[in-house]
Amino acid sequence: MGIRTDLAVERREMAADGCEGVTSEELSVGSARITRIAVTSPAGAAAVGKPMGRYVTVEVPPFFDETAADDTRRSAITVELSRMLPPEGPILVAGLGNSDITPDALGPKTAESILATRHVSESLAQALGLGPLRPVSVIAPGVLGKTGIETAEIIRGVVTQVQPAAVIVIDALASRRLARLGCTVQIADTGITPGSGVGNARRAIDQTVLGVPVIAVGVPTVVDAATLAADLLGGETAPENAGGDQPPMMVTPREIDTVITHAADLVALAINCALHPKLDPDLLMELV
Amino acid sequence: MGIRTDLAVERREMAADGCEGVTSEELSVGSARITRIAVTSPAGAAAVGKPMGRYVTVEVPPFFDETAADDTRRSAITVELSRMLPPEGPILVAGLGNSDITPDALGPKTAESILATRHVSESLAQALGLGPLRPVSVIAPGVLGKTGIETAEIIRGVVTQVQPAAVIVIDALASRRLARLGCTVQIADTGITPGSGVGNARRAIDQTVLGVPVIAVGVPTVVDAATLAADLLGGETAPENAGGDQPPMMVTPREIDTVITHAADLVALAINCALHPKLDPDLLMELV
Amino acid sequence: MGIRTDLAVERREMAADGCEGVTSEELSVGSARITRIAVTSPAGAAAVGKPMGRYVTVEVPPFFDETAADDTRRSAITVELSRMLPPEGPILVAGLGNSDITPDALGPKTAESILATRHVSESLAQALGLGPLRPVSVIAPGVLGKTGIETAEIIRGVVTQVQPAAVIVIDALASRRLARLGCTVQIADTGITPGSGVGNARRAIDQTVLGVPVIAVGVPTVVDAATLAADLLGGETAPENAGGDQPPMMVTPREIDTVITHAADLVALAINCALHPKLDPDLLMELV
Amino acid sequence: MGIRTDLAVERREMAADGCEGVTSEELSVGSARITRIAVTSPAGAAAVGKPMGRYVTVEVPPFFDETAADDTRRSAITVELSRMLPPEGPILVAGLGNSDITPDALGPKTAESILATRHVSESLAQALGLGPLRPVSVIAPGVLGKTGIETAEIIRGVVTQVQPAAVIVIDALASRRLARLGCTVQIADTGITPGSGVGNARRAIDQTVLGVPVIAVGVPTVVDAATLAADLLGGETAPENAGGDQPPMMVTPREIDTVITHAADLVALAINCALHPKLDPDLLMELV
Repeated sequence: MGIRTDLAVERREMAADGCEGVTSEELSVGSARITRIAVTSPAGAAAVGKPMGRYVTVEVPPFFDETAADDTRRSAITVELSRMLPPEGPILVAGLGNSDITPDALGPKTAESILATRHVSESLAQALGLGPLRPVSVIAPGVLGKTGIETAEIIRGVVTQVQPAAVIVIDALASRRLARLGCTVQIADTGITPGSGVGNARRAIDQTVLGVPVIAVGVPTVVDAATLAADLLGGETAPENAGGDQPPMMVTPREIDTVITHAADLVALAINCALHPKLDPDLLMELV
Repeated sequence: MGIRTDLAVERREMAADGCEGVTSEELSVGSARITRIAVTSPAGAAAVGKPMGRYVTVEVPPFFDETAADDTRRSAITVELSRMLPPEGPILVAGLGNSDITPDALGPKTAESILATRHVSESLAQALGLGPLRPVSVIAPGVLGKTGIETAEIIRGVVTQVQPAAVIVIDALASRRLARLGCTVQIADTGITPGSGVGNARRAIDQTVLGVPVIAVGVPTVVDAATLAADLLGGETAPENAGGDQPPMMVTPREIDTVITHAADLVALAINCALHPKLDPDLLMELV
Repeated sequence: MGIRTDLAVERREMAADGCEGVTSEELSVGSARITRIAVTSPAGAAAVGKPMGRYVTVEVPPFFDETAADDTRRSAITVELSRMLPPEGPILVAGLGNSDITPDALGPKTAESILATRHVSESLAQALGLGPLRPVSVIAPGVLGKTGIETAEIIRGVVTQVQPAAVIVIDALASRRLARLGCTVQIADTGITPGSGVGNARRAIDQTVLGVPVIAVGVPTVVDAATLAADLLGGETAPENAGGDQPPMMVTPREIDTVITHAADLVALAINCALHPKLDPDLLMELV
Repeated sequence: MGIRTDLAVERREMAADGCEGVTSEELSVGSARITRIAVTSPAGAAAVGKPMGRYVTVEVPPFFDETAADDTRRSAITVELSRMLPPEGPILVAGLGNSDITPDALGPKTAESILATRHVSESLAQALGLGPLRPVSVIAPGVLGKTGIETAEIIRGVVTQVQPAAVIVIDALASRRLARLGCTVQIADTGITPGSGVGNARRAIDQTVLGVPVIAVGVPTVVDAATLAADLLGGETAPENAGGDQPPMMVTPREIDTVITHAADLVALAINCALHPKLDPDLLMELV
């Protein structure tokens, strides 16, 4: 069809109304609009082109502003993420993507601000007044072209060592709408297929491959140019020969550096708060 | 009209055929296609929306490849730039733009690889086997929002100190076509108005303001999203309500980091070769 | 003598006791220890090897901690700097040094966090609730080897355009003691000679050259290796043949990246507070 | 004793002459001076304070110059490394250290320029004219404080996935002499204990832990300040109370950014050449 998107909320828009096996629910919390989609049957999965599972989209005011500890954008993401996390046990956080390509650097940048605690002894944590801490470990596995290793393999290798109760993967996504870039976060309990939105699909990173639940946190940072043209014209499909004989090209806003910096700060704080609900968000901001 | 572009070659396409006061000439040199446009009357200037002067567009294979000293892309730019430079006398090179915004960082990045020679004494140059060197100085003046000073003011201040025979300014431009990003260089003897293509015009940097000739070297790095949509659909004008009530948004390719790195290397070497025609390009690559 | 230092407080230690034309005063403010030295005669200038003028050293707890708006380290620097600033009129801030050499990058890094206000109209400032703002402009002029222009020339050129009441220059210094790196700031009303401490002296940047008062804010970031050896051994002079036939070598702590980041944050906030005494420090931290 | 060093060649200097279980051999190749030390008994290991195994030091002209494909510095490192590598089979290269601390960033920087080939199919390699390629994979595992995971654990996890015939680890070392920084490479078949030279020892990364041979490539980038003082004074031990009550402090040259950049380029090319002996060094420089 020519419409490229990693967002379940956009795929559902394109599917026929009331499609079987897909339910959704919308709610507003402060400045955030939340859409919870459940894909509950193979027919639903086929209709939206995504695996069965839960997909939550959190739409918030743009990321251009600094993150504050009392941010309602942050707390909406924290709440939705917490609903998918196992209540206890070690967590491995993996920031996916290529740190040399600005719109793909969201994962590694977010990982830099995740608080690693697995190596902090209980006595040290007590001495610091932090109480018992959930063990969190953090990696930025890089990309196949630079490592020679599928991202899924590196994470699986680390999982064999740290034995987490679940893995959180953070990645940049493709959206059909420019307007979503800088103001949307998708949280899914289905894991992720890196590069699927940008025509460069890699091996899936999900419970089948890793053996533990995989929660994906994604932020759209690119739009396919032909999809963008269709979207600006209000059409549901890309124009017949849009792009002509040019190769497909993903575009990103001129201000992508700012979008990535602020999105990484916001998502990292939201994850830290979900992993350490007893710690004050202000304290978590200082610790990283 | 809704079509935003800084390129004279694109503005002329949009103007009526055979418009008075605008002449052009095309030639091919190796892998480069060169279009020389002269705007010779006020009527011509009005028709293309650019000041009277000479505009040369050099279209080359994409910048994704490494620059080599024997690059025909490089030599085409060097030749066209040399035609506009005064034959001798000190030169000030200014790399315009914001180094924190990837598609706007072309100017500062290029400036980093321009060989500064004004401080090298003749005896040192001789001792190094370089012979007498043209005095070249280099600045990256930053942007108004960070300095509080118009770029034109900073350059004018430095011009009072170094008294150059001409100023070369390097800047990122807006094009109407995605396909141009990464494979086009525009050289003009009219100076520049920073930000003019992106709806953020600043004070002009030209001979009127600086008192010496100003040669602008520009590389398109962004496209207006509505213009892009129009262009993909083959239209001459942007769609009526393309973009709807969204604010105008400039976009850039996902691979912009690579485009900027390679464009800066290529443009810097082309300028260094034009300023030091007696030095071997291989040697110039090593010196910076 | 072999002892290399840019700090007046260290040069005075080395001079004979009670030397004529040099007076000093010490005080403590919160966690900061302040030493105010006045060099009041040519004899004093000869004794300490520094031009006549006022030199204030603020010694504070190490810079490894984050800067907070209510920081007593910050307020001590703000108070001492305010005593040297003209009470009103435009200010030009210049961050000296080479951003590619970590221990030399203090000036450019600090400049990035100075609030530029000269371009903000009074009506905009009022609309933002900031009241009338002192006009501040900011530059990072780079270094001679990369620009071909003496730093003093670039600043003088910009001074001709913005006509400031005074110039603040920020630079990295050499100290005789490792222990000072990361916890000392020197403020002087004599301007500066870039590179004087590191055997690479450049043209002075002072009132004689610029025509307006020049206030220097310096932070020691390097130590000469031979001086370090002498200092560790408690001697007043470097060992006879320390270093042997090795060239002199300046060293810096392994953690210099952290020292520079935190020093730049602290010094920038201290300067912003001195320039805008009516604005809340918390607000100033958010604005940059 | 107070002398801190990771270099076997320096530890042997300090041991009594002719100590049992330690043999050494010196040779010169072009501009490189090579010292091969074998620690062959537990007594020898105790005498030099390093595990039994082979240690080769390659001393070369300083790293300040650009690396060239025909560099004799490069070929000396390649030859010595090749003598320790298994003749065939997959190799995993791990760049150790903290990319945020300049003197500790050698490992991650070098890893960026190692050619990953494990994911390149034989048919693609043939099509590119490269012939069959040795499978190489590359990681930069980060540091415990940021990941929560011991470096040894991450590498072990990746080893379970890629099953290499050997692991090459690259790390920054401590030397006793400033003069060695920027002109020494140590290659050892004993693996490595990260941070051992800087008083921050972590879990060993060796054949016992990983199950395959581990070859360590190390470059000294820091010196303990007290050791430096002793060394400048020609003594064999650090002065009694050198440093007094100051904590131990590791220092690094002011020009460390340049040292790291050039060392990483040189070491990466040397490793690439050792792993792909049939490919031309010039081609290898272009491929990364």
